[in-house]
Amino acid sequence: MPQLRQDIVTGKWVIIATERARRPHSFSETKRIVSKKRTICPFCYGNEYMTPLEVLAFRDNGEPNSSGWKVRVVPNKFPALIPKGKPELIKNGIYFTMNGVGAHEVIIHSPNHDLLLPLMNEKQIELVLKAYLIRYKELSEDPNIKFIHIIINHGKEAGASLDHPHSQLFGLPIVPNFVLDEIDGLKRYFDKFKKCVFCEIIKKELQDGKRIIEETDKFIAFEPFASKLPFETWIIPKEHMESFSDMGENDLVDCSKILRNTMKKIYNGLNDPPLNYWLHSAPLHNNHKHYHWHFEIIPKLTTTGGFELGTGTIINTTLPEECAKYLKNFNK
Amino acid sequence: MPQLRQDIVTGKWVIIATERARRPHSFSETKRIVSKKRTICPFCYGNEYMTPLEVLAFRDNGEPNSSGWKVRVVPNKFPALIPKGKPELIKNGIYFTMNGVGAHEVIIHSPNHDLLLPLMNEKQIELVLKAYLIRYKELSEDPNIKFIHIIINHGKEAGASLDHPHSQLFGLPIVPNFVLDEIDGLKRYFDKFKKCVFCEIIKKELQDGKRIIEETDKFIAFEPFASKLPFETWIIPKEHMESFSDMGENDLVDCSKILRNTMKKIYNGLNDPPLNYWLHSAPLHNNHKHYHWHFEIIPKLTTTGGFELGTGTIINTTLPEECAKYLKNFNK
Repeated sequence: MPQLRQDIVTGKWVIIATERARRPHSFSETKRIVSKKRTICPFCYGNEYMTPLEVLAFRDNGEPNSSGWKVRVVPNKFPALIPKGKPELIKNGIYFTMNGVGAHEVIIHSPNHDLLLPLMNEKQIELVLKAYLIRYKELSEDPNIKFIHIIINHGKEAGASLDHPHSQLFGLPIVPNFVLDEIDGLKRYFDKFKKCVFCEIIKKELQDGKRIIEETDKFIAFEPFASKLPFETWIIPKEHMESFSDMGENDLVDCSKILRNTMKKIYNGLNDPPLNYWLHSAPLHNNHKHYHWHFEIIPKLTTTGGFELGTGTIINTTLPEECAKYLKNFNK
Repeated sequence: MPQLRQDIVTGKWVIIATERARRPHSFSETKRIVSKKRTICPFCYGNEYMTPLEVLAFRDNGEPNSSGWKVRVVPNKFPALIPKGKPELIKNGIYFTMNGVGAHEVIIHSPNHDLLLPLMNEKQIELVLKAYLIRYKELSEDPNIKFIHIIINHGKEAGASLDHPHSQLFGLPIVPNFVLDEIDGLKRYFDKFKKCVFCEIIKKELQDGKRIIEETDKFIAFEPFASKLPFETWIIPKEHMESFSDMGENDLVDCSKILRNTMKKIYNGLNDPPLNYWLHSAPLHNNHKHYHWHFEIIPKLTTTGGFELGTGTIINTTLPEECAKYLKNFNK
């Protein structure tokens, strides 16, 4: 019999339709499409002139905007938001618009065109996360930016337009809907139980064990009880930590480790699937002490239709417990 | 400069990134993929034995579950929800589940395997909508069902698993998130202005004219001001009407006309794109007098990535005014 599971944070329901279920291993046939045609890549050494001027780079040698860097951050060439002016509300009859003020940057993971994140070593991933942190902290000072969203789109099917591994950072003039939903839920839970709901989830997951796929000193990676999609995976610090920018040096090292190991399990277990991941961290400038930052990783294995698009409710075809059991077996 | 537009109903923002814009005509290259291999189709005449027993059929002759029907409704063979038992809340530590009680049916539009909805005549579309109405009304009597969602997934890229044109009906034991968001917005607007926000939108759209693509005596079809995706199109009754099931005979005739003409413009203008459409109608059993039912149609022309999945906020690359201007020019 199909079942519904409630997301304890937002209160939203997910339908887990076991009658339509696919076995976890069947998803390993969804390897992402890699472009065969190799065009000139703006993220490779020697092509730095093809991007806007860098806002950050780690390099042992070389001038800014030349080769020799290890991680490089540049503004997006086709930005969805731009750091110009103020986000003002403009009335248009009954409707409202706002100018698209904010930031839209690209974090190029390494000069190696083919080096995927799960194949990097921990030191290399540390540099990527360090670049996230530096840009996060700097943009947090901007009063026009209310929320920072960092993502990876891996593979064309997951929305990537360039193969060279990179992340994108968005500085938004609004707090997005899904984060507002989480915040509403966190407040509701805190008012009722005087506890952080994310901390409660971590306690429960460590007790149950059956949805956890990785654990380090400071983090766990697990498949949420009300997973929206097959192999949805969260990485979350065990101790309460409001914002991604609260991470210290040791946290960063540990986070690199669990991110690598988790991404590697997904890479090996699902045969390099297209995927999206994103960071959920507390909104800026306001007190959000109940927030508890985390990464959400979702391989792109299914096609959403009019049910999901029209309801915002998702039919998941696989139990998270089965996904966790499957992924756990893949070596680092 | 990119702009944000606010959905006046839900308060959600959409980013319209004109810097990334594609011209409307460029979307006409996204024709859906049609299966080349013709397998035995369970929705064609002679194969009625391949589906569960019909719950409704319009036929001039023939026994139930034999050929001769014009429109046929059957339970889904792999249901996401089933009409058995009661939707009970089950506690699992801190988490909650509910058994998947409800309905999941398939409305087969005609016996013709290749006859797409935009190519049907108005009389044929009337029969499809009549089947929707009859099933809607019958399932509305079920106290376990809180909301009825009717969809079309057209094309593999939009989630269809069978080519033969059909709709799906879901009877849900919950009111889904997006409808709850609309209801919250409707209440907020009504409390403030003592008016239905959808009625206000219709007034504004008729005044402006630049986002309307079709109009009949009783309906308009338009591209919403805060369109989430290129060529998002709504069909809505001009007079306030809470539920789809409130339609009378004349409304049904008029609705068939605008649905056909609108779908035909999308079919011709965008070269038979994959698409999803769904019905938003008032939840059942409670008073929702501010609700105003409508169809939402969204061609599947883009790939969503980690920004959209992680924020619930969408970056739309095309202005709705341009989409409307483009579609208007296509003949019926």
